[in-house]
Amino acid sequence: MPQQRLLDRIVTPHQLRRLNEDQLVQVAEELRERIIAVVSKNGGHLASNLGITELTVALHNVFDFSHDRLLWDVGHQCYAHKLLTGRGERFSTLRQAGGISGFPAPSESPYDLFATGHAGTAISTAAGMAWADHVAGRDTRVVAVVGDGSIVNGLSLEGLNNAALLKRQFLIVLNDNSMSIDPSQGALAGMLDRVRMSHTYSDIKQSTETMLQRLPLGEEISEAIRQIKAGLRTTLHGGSFFESLGIAYFGPVDGHNIHALVHIMGRLASVNQPVILHVHTQKGRGCQYAVEDPCRFHSPPAYTIEQGKAVFAQTAKASWTAAFSKVLVDLAADDERIMAITAAMPDGTGLVEFRSAYPKRFVDVGISESHAVAMAAGLSRAGLRPVVAIYSTFMQRAVDQVFQELALQKLPAVLCMDRAGLVGSDGAVHQGFMDIAMFRSIPGMVLMAPGDAEELRAAMTLALSLDGPAAIRYPRDEIPQPLEGPCPPFELGKSRCVRQGRDAAVFAYGAMVEQALEAAAELASNGIETAVYSARFAKPLDAATLTELIASRRPLLVVEDHAVAGGLGSAVLELAAQKGLDASTVRLAGLPDRFVSHASRGEQLARVGLDGAHLAATLRDMLRKTAPGATASGFVRGPVRSSDSPGAA
Amino acid sequence: MPQQRLLDRIVTPHQLRRLNEDQLVQVAEELRERIIAVVSKNGGHLASNLGITELTVALHNVFDFSHDRLLWDVGHQCYAHKLLTGRGERFSTLRQAGGISGFPAPSESPYDLFATGHAGTAISTAAGMAWADHVAGRDTRVVAVVGDGSIVNGLSLEGLNNAALLKRQFLIVLNDNSMSIDPSQGALAGMLDRVRMSHTYSDIKQSTETMLQRLPLGEEISEAIRQIKAGLRTTLHGGSFFESLGIAYFGPVDGHNIHALVHIMGRLASVNQPVILHVHTQKGRGCQYAVEDPCRFHSPPAYTIEQGKAVFAQTAKASWTAAFSKVLVDLAADDERIMAITAAMPDGTGLVEFRSAYPKRFVDVGISESHAVAMAAGLSRAGLRPVVAIYSTFMQRAVDQVFQELALQKLPAVLCMDRAGLVGSDGAVHQGFMDIAMFRSIPGMVLMAPGDAEELRAAMTLALSLDGPAAIRYPRDEIPQPLEGPCPPFELGKSRCVRQGRDAAVFAYGAMVEQALEAAAELASNGIETAVYSARFAKPLDAATLTELIASRRPLLVVEDHAVAGGLGSAVLELAAQKGLDASTVRLAGLPDRFVSHASRGEQLARVGLDGAHLAATLRDMLRKTAPGATASGFVRGPVRSSDSPGAA
Repeated sequence: MPQQRLLDRIVTPHQLRRLNEDQLVQVAEELRERIIAVVSKNGGHLASNLGITELTVALHNVFDFSHDRLLWDVGHQCYAHKLLTGRGERFSTLRQAGGISGFPAPSESPYDLFATGHAGTAISTAAGMAWADHVAGRDTRVVAVVGDGSIVNGLSLEGLNNAALLKRQFLIVLNDNSMSIDPSQGALAGMLDRVRMSHTYSDIKQSTETMLQRLPLGEEISEAIRQIKAGLRTTLHGGSFFESLGIAYFGPVDGHNIHALVHIMGRLASVNQPVILHVHTQKGRGCQYAVEDPCRFHSPPAYTIEQGKAVFAQTAKASWTAAFSKVLVDLAADDERIMAITAAMPDGTGLVEFRSAYPKRFVDVGISESHAVAMAAGLSRAGLRPVVAIYSTFMQRAVDQVFQELALQKLPAVLCMDRAGLVGSDGAVHQGFMDIAMFRSIPGMVLMAPGDAEELRAAMTLALSLDGPAAIRYPRDEIPQPLEGPCPPFELGKSRCVRQGRDAAVFAYGAMVEQALEAAAELASNGIETAVYSARFAKPLDAATLTELIASRRPLLVVEDHAVAGGLGSAVLELAAQKGLDASTVRLAGLPDRFVSHASRGEQLARVGLDGAHLAATLRDMLRKTAPGATASGFVRGPVRSSDSPGAA
Repeated sequence: MPQQRLLDRIVTPHQLRRLNEDQLVQVAEELRERIIAVVSKNGGHLASNLGITELTVALHNVFDFSHDRLLWDVGHQCYAHKLLTGRGERFSTLRQAGGISGFPAPSESPYDLFATGHAGTAISTAAGMAWADHVAGRDTRVVAVVGDGSIVNGLSLEGLNNAALLKRQFLIVLNDNSMSIDPSQGALAGMLDRVRMSHTYSDIKQSTETMLQRLPLGEEISEAIRQIKAGLRTTLHGGSFFESLGIAYFGPVDGHNIHALVHIMGRLASVNQPVILHVHTQKGRGCQYAVEDPCRFHSPPAYTIEQGKAVFAQTAKASWTAAFSKVLVDLAADDERIMAITAAMPDGTGLVEFRSAYPKRFVDVGISESHAVAMAAGLSRAGLRPVVAIYSTFMQRAVDQVFQELALQKLPAVLCMDRAGLVGSDGAVHQGFMDIAMFRSIPGMVLMAPGDAEELRAAMTLALSLDGPAAIRYPRDEIPQPLEGPCPPFELGKSRCVRQGRDAAVFAYGAMVEQALEAAAELASNGIETAVYSARFAKPLDAATLTELIASRRPLLVVEDHAVAGGLGSAVLELAAQKGLDASTVRLAGLPDRFVSHASRGEQLARVGLDGAHLAATLRDMLRKTAPGATASGFVRGPVRSSDSPGAA
């Protein structure tokens, strides 16, 4: 029988429910083809999405999510869901500026309940919805899909502990794609691993089927569940963790068997108590290269297949991440106190090389950012020098530990925050826009950002010599050309002038030095001489240099890839207020007070006015506005020439 | 035999190890007497400290914490530990300015490893130390003492999941004082409750003793432990949660039986794998009134016993907490969407009355602040209006959920942050100094603080009408007299002028309006007329009023009980920069960039320059400095009279 393209005819998931099981299998295959086609072109999350197509089809077949509630934890595995809920036509714009998001997005569809990019949240938000439905007496069914990596997160565990008390339907689908976490990340991962190894759906199919078919539905289910569980427990071994919390556990089930998924979920859907269904899926399913290298194909850039091998469009230029990786490995060779900690991101944070070089000095705690920082404090108290590599946006989960466990105890530790600032196509859920604001108010913190690879090395070197905590931020981007001249060592509260200029000055934080230099070069072509500083520190500030710059009454533009609210610029203004200086010649360039959606990082920088061209325009505007005042003032040492004004250019 | 005062002779815990068991029992009783004597005079944590004296004596008897490592979770139960580690003489200064802290304090003693006031951290920090010791090949033994309330915290659970992997000694003492958490807070609490009810030490003593005596020590322990566990499991029922994570579980043991504690801990001390010992203690033990009302005597103010009843020295004046309690109960009567959530603090946050009035609309999730906020987001998404009451300092644990689950989704919810600012005798671990900074950078957040009870009602009313999240802060303090005149409704980004004045202005946030009015009254007696504004909003700012105030070039003092870094004042300066205004007449009064230790709130405010007298002095200084500039400027509308200058006073 020649296959028809079923997927093109599905505009709402209701249409899915009219298909037979063979057709559902076909839809899952078509979803897979479509996902591969678009991700190979746009980049995006591949392996996890290929692993979840059957589960997604089964979920939309069993439940009616125009009424029921579906929560995706983390959310990057939502592609099949998007394709089945009216976004097929626009799917080719995935992760592109103006296109559809790579994460669930309530703005796109009522089928997306929460925009989620941070892990471990779905059980809690789903429990909240279930609780509200319970109070209102609504019969909506609530499903949370949670990965094996997310289930170990503290928020997931808090959610489980609380959700177990619900006296109504609540289905947690544990999407266990085996390779996503290493059992070395924690005991729970080890437990799942043992369960996964010892059983598959086919092993237990018969007994489960028989028992499930006897399940009565509705109010009196609890006792029946208990009896069934007693029977299952001896068969399955697994699930004791969940059962000790009072959550009925079923599984593991083959997550690529739509028949089994529909059958079991169809029955569990009506159980009036919290239930966990352990589903075993394979990352990259149906795509040989993704199955073979699920790490590389977790979130690949655009690629083509040539002679059976993937060729990536990505330029070979070195990234900030790679620079960090090299610096840390180098420094650790001479400093045995260094231990590196990641929260399930050895690749993303650049710790793979460190892990290879110093396996005993490396710890991956899983998606447990709070624990990563608290544990680092313990390591530090016992004399080591922990380096904790966590993305800026995920560091939001460790604010309290940075406060109490590190800063209050004055314990040395280095927090390395990759993905600081605008992150490109991951969009709003991953922008690192608040790390300066949240840490700047904590006494004793040292906040740094390097302008190039050598500055990163110098910042790390200083951080490792301090007697308290330090945080270093850098973006997801190519690392810029080395700044001109030798790189002076980082000294607490000292900025670095990287370009002289008498007309105006830019005080740029970290990676923004590159854009500041671009702006200065553009202005120089019009005869405007702009000084550029690598700020280096958001805390402590370079009070001497800044006082001089502000008092000069020349335009001073503070540039940071961070919210203006509470950022470096805000610190500069506080300094001016403390000194009683007129800071009306200071302007702040940073992220606006709105969420910035997905696009390339370059597009995003331009959109918020942080690329070289926009910074140059801002400086021209400042020169135009401040020139008369500056002339009237006695402070101006390098007077603004009239030929510098944009009008004369 | 006439009893000798043994406690007075103990200056280091080593002396404890020379005593026999009867003497240890006597020491525990003497500790109890001393704790009651000092807490009744100074206020402090009572019931929990009375419950843990025998356990503390046993710990210091079995271990040598000049070498081994002892971590206290939360830490407010450390009084007996302090009395046994050289702080007996100074113990009478407990929680007083310049006296010893009510929490562990490394600055006081090498026996205090971490200053801890936030719950759930000890397993993680202890695991970090154990890990470091493991790497270094040190034989130090590591003990974490964790309460039953703390063990459900996400950080504790992340810590357990990771600590279970340790291949060395690691003892977690679960101090389960039964009444501290209600099983309704979560499944794990329910499980502990069932274990606790079904067994006591005496029931299982014989079998445990027999098995423990057979324990071999050292490397080959693991298999033996497994065998013993298999035996114990059938006897004990409990502990399956911990065992499923691979942590050997023993207990429950009577925590008031020093003999049993010394015996069991002595044997578990040499086990080379993670072990949890479940100890059952009684809050308030040995003190009838504390046993009968452990909530009232959790952290009582100073009191005397008259005719067998406690009489509290505390004034009967109404607190901010009580005002919040009343407002919420009132508003909920007319708004059925309101649900209130607490994270184990129904008393402290003032939700007890709400719980009584609307039991079905109240949820206590236990010490799970992240879950509280994420769950609130779910409730909100399903149409309810959650009110989450969490102390400012503990809100640091929910930053990421406020970002992703609430603000990014634009979901309405009200975060009520009691204990904002300086908190008095709880000191540095509990100061609420960073809530504005961490939330101000999040797009869409509305941040408010009321100046009196009516403003609190008006702020809550507005918050409940918004279509996004709002946070309201107020301190642990008596509520001030009502501000003069009728209270206008809260309008987004509108401040309120509460006192006119042409010479200077104070823009005060929330409770600081009281101190601002005191300062204004003092200055008025010298003929200086100071306007006072209740800022009401830290976000969105009252841009119109502030622009006018700054442009007037009269001294403008921004006052907040929050870090200067990133706070309201910082927002005011950002506004000035955005408008290109000279803000050199603006000064910021807030918390300095250091941790503020314990003292009364009044003493703390004076110490950081935020009481009325200091604010008046600051304003005089500003008038002295800005007067010439102000006169030269054309902007001054209410010129500063020379008679107003401090020199003329």
